[in-house]
Amino acid sequence: MGTLNVVGIGPGAKEHMTILAYETLKESDIIVGYTKYIALLTEEFDGIKKISTGMGSEEERCRMALDEASKDSNVSLICSGDSVIYGMAGLVYELLSDYENVDVKVIPGVTAAISGSSLIGAGIGNDFSVISLSNYLTDKEDTYKRLRACAEADLVIVLYNPVSNKRPDCLSNACDYLMNIIPHDRVCAVAKNIGRENECYEVMTLKELREFKADMFSTVFIGSSNTVCVNNKFVTRRGYKV
Amino acid sequence: MGTLNVVGIGPGAKEHMTILAYETLKESDIIVGYTKYIALLTEEFDGIKKISTGMGSEEERCRMALDEASKDSNVSLICSGDSVIYGMAGLVYELLSDYENVDVKVIPGVTAAISGSSLIGAGIGNDFSVISLSNYLTDKEDTYKRLRACAEADLVIVLYNPVSNKRPDCLSNACDYLMNIIPHDRVCAVAKNIGRENECYEVMTLKELREFKADMFSTVFIGSSNTVCVNNKFVTRRGYKV
Repeated sequence: MGTLNVVGIGPGAKEHMTILAYETLKESDIIVGYTKYIALLTEEFDGIKKISTGMGSEEERCRMALDEASKDSNVSLICSGDSVIYGMAGLVYELLSDYENVDVKVIPGVTAAISGSSLIGAGIGNDFSVISLSNYLTDKEDTYKRLRACAEADLVIVLYNPVSNKRPDCLSNACDYLMNIIPHDRVCAVAKNIGRENECYEVMTLKELREFKADMFSTVFIGSSNTVCVNNKFVTRRGYKV
Repeated sequence: MGTLNVVGIGPGAKEHMTILAYETLKESDIIVGYTKYIALLTEEFDGIKKISTGMGSEEERCRMALDEASKDSNVSLICSGDSVIYGMAGLVYELLSDYENVDVKVIPGVTAAISGSSLIGAGIGNDFSVISLSNYLTDKEDTYKRLRACAEADLVIVLYNPVSNKRPDCLSNACDYLMNIIPHDRVCAVAKNIGRENECYEVMTLKELREFKADMFSTVFIGSSNTVCVNNKFVTRRGYKV
């Protein structure tokens, strides 16, 4: 019986990894992952065999990891952030029926909504939603329906994949849409390179967010009516009377 | 200049703590927290002074932590799960203007939506929302508005605080409400005692969830139309064609 650990490594720096994720990786025979995530691993993992694949080859990557695990190996498939949130755990379970003798373990990690929320202040201190703006696997119509629903219901909205080379106007278009629903001065924030070199954040209004140059390493926070800017921090009040 | 670290300790077990959270606690002069969370800390932290307060005294707890930090101490205020999600970080920022010479650091942690999602399978593999059913700080009307919006927008919904001694029918009432919006056989799951003794989970339909005996240590997952039950796991498909 081989083991496939699907491991969320957090935003990047070792310190944001859970102790379980760290120990699981250290004990692995093989670590499989997207090329850029493999590159995030520190030299402590140098002695372990690595297999990396490019973007868009997610099924191939999962099958490679399952193939190796089915040879009685202890394999870890790494995901940036969490192992489930826009990660590989679901796909592994879907493919698992093709493989015998593989035990799957899913190890959670700190996703960008959470690490970013701490970086910008206290971002998601009340009911919230996480929505990816990527149209790679979700129709744009469904994404916009979700944006409208969450904005109308006064949830904090965390946006993943706000722009890409193929979708340079994706975030500004979403802002235009949201400005029809919530006030233009709604408190927003962008966290960039969370837990990595050049980590930074900026608090701004929704109108300013429309003009902001976000990139593929940005996580975007749209505040609720309970979000305030306190000392340049994005803070969502839970409702305590102070 | 004293420091107040607001630390998310994850679900309970040390292994689910991030390395940064663990090291921050180890280096603290004082650890402040809700009585039950202080009790989760292992004996490794025995040598550190602890201050605990009961449920409902959140402002008092934050002020105690800020008071101690303002005396040039390195204080950690612990939160179960994440430090921000229904945690203390927001309240600390709101109170901070009353204190001089305190540097606040917010250390993220693995919240129950994420640890539970890994336990039940791959729970939140696509766009999702987190909603607390507690009416302590949020009006029931707002909560129901959010439930409707997220169900109609086909988000996975993670419910925190599904029941309490004062709200024994809270989850079943929410299920009754949701059954008017989404199919009665929608895949749902409950994770109990995540990362603690007697950890367990159960996958069921929405109709079965209505009758399920959840408790204060339960986290509830309401699937989207992309959620399937695979080998008794709750798996939300991201959309890969396999």
